Amino acid sequence: MRRIRITLAYDGTDFHGWQRQPDVPTIQGWLQHVLGAIEGQPVRVDGSGRTDAGVHALAQVAAFHLANPLPLENLRRAMNRLLPAAIRVLSVEEAPPDFHPRYQARSKIYEYRIFRGEVCSPFERRYVLHHPYALDVDAFVAVAPVLEGEHDFSGFAASDESDREGGSSVRTILSSRAEAAGERLIYRVRGSGFLKHMVRNIVGTLLEVGKGNLDEAGLRALLTPGPKARAGPTAAASGLFLLSVEY
Amino acid sequence: MRRIRITLAYDGTDFHGWQRQPDVPTIQGWLQHVLGAIEGQPVRVDGSGRTDAGVHALAQVAAFHLANPLPLENLRRAMNRLLPAAIRVLSVEEAPPDFHPRYQARSKIYEYRIFRGEVCSPFERRYVLHHPYALDVDAFVAVAPVLEGEHDFSGFAASDESDREGGSSVRTILSSRAEAAGERLIYRVRGSGFLKHMVRNIVGTLLEVGKGNLDEAGLRALLTPGPKARAGPTAAASGLFLLSVEY
Repeated sequence: MRRIRITLAYDGTDFHGWQRQPDVPTIQGWLQHVLGAIEGQPVRVDGSGRTDAGVHALAQVAAFHLANPLPLENLRRAMNRLLPAAIRVLSVEEAPPDFHPRYQARSKIYEYRIFRGEVCSPFERRYVLHHPYALDVDAFVAVAPVLEGEHDFSGFAASDESDREGGSSVRTILSSRAEAAGERLIYRVRGSGFLKHMVRNIVGTLLEVGKGNLDEAGLRALLTPGPKARAGPTAAASGLFLLSVEY
Repeated sequence: MRRIRITLAYDGTDFHGWQRQPDVPTIQGWLQHVLGAIEGQPVRVDGSGRTDAGVHALAQVAAFHLANPLPLENLRRAMNRLLPAAIRVLSVEEAPPDFHPRYQARSKIYEYRIFRGEVCSPFERRYVLHHPYALDVDAFVAVAPVLEGEHDFSGFAASDESDREGGSSVRTILSSRAEAAGERLIYRVRGSGFLKHMVRNIVGTLLEVGKGNLDEAGLRALLTPGPKARAGPTAAASGLFLLSVEY
């Protein structure tokens, strides 16, 4: 059996996230459906991680076993012909038999896009958080790097966090930076791994700093061991993009 | 009664065009619904022209009468709060009582966006024609200005053209230019008025030139009086944007 590695982009707006579920459109569900049709029997697709409902990807990585000897280029074309236009296979390559996009990922980069103007363009509304309210952007930008380093991010995990299965909630953030340009505020984070909802909860917390509801000391307290307040609310999925996965 | 002029942008993907129809979402239908709620009685909204299902607008112009003395800024906010995010009111102003956005329009500018790369980004698919096939882009660009001037555009009208009501199909095209940049091909046309489907039929015809199915003489023949072949097929609505209306 071949092991195939693919890179894909998707507009997450109309999907119920990565993970296959019965009766609703998901990214993994669509990939498995299409590859099952190509292979003539069920194909299991492993992703680098689950993205939530509504979250987008510019370069998600996935892998699957395939017996079909189809040349790579034809496989890519066949997948794109069968997939909805909101999911595109950007590249396809042969991978080592043991390649696993999740266990072997070294780091991931996410970007979160906030639009601060009063009227959000109809053409961008699906791809930003629209936040037309007062915000201390300088404070948001200034505290973003506080998250860098190795920390216990349990304060930033989803309340129903099921991924950990008793595992550690310690993660290493290699870079956490925000940049403002006019009415746009872009947050970019690179890390060894992320808990469920972690990036959106980080953004929700940085927004609390921008609103004056939390200061740098309060943010640091969320990262230190011991009983702690929960992070800010989970920011909308629409603004979040998985930019890349590094191996 | 006040006469109010508004400028609006919309992502036409999920609407059945400008014109109100029962039981389906349209731009005019939504505007009249929202203004009816604000006014407390039915409000008729006049547009600069009908856009087809799926066609977008960056600055459509519309007008309506209103008894409600709401300040303009509040009116704009109320409309944007009640409208779907795919329709945004960009500006609102008081207009002369006899202002009519259709009859008084001097010219309009449309833009048509073609993406020629093999894989179309999921984030652009709603806003381009994806044409990943062989195309002589230089020929497309070279013949675009042939349409400039006053011509009988009946060859470019929708076959069910109902707008004319026996009127003339002579229109003046002030500018008709295409520009290629990498995998993108942008066509922009400014004219005194347009027949139903005219811009999309022009683009479909220019694509026929790019495919080698029609030459410049054939294109000119479509613009001359007398029996003539029909223009190329109607290009997809997704690539078409109403850029502005000039008064």
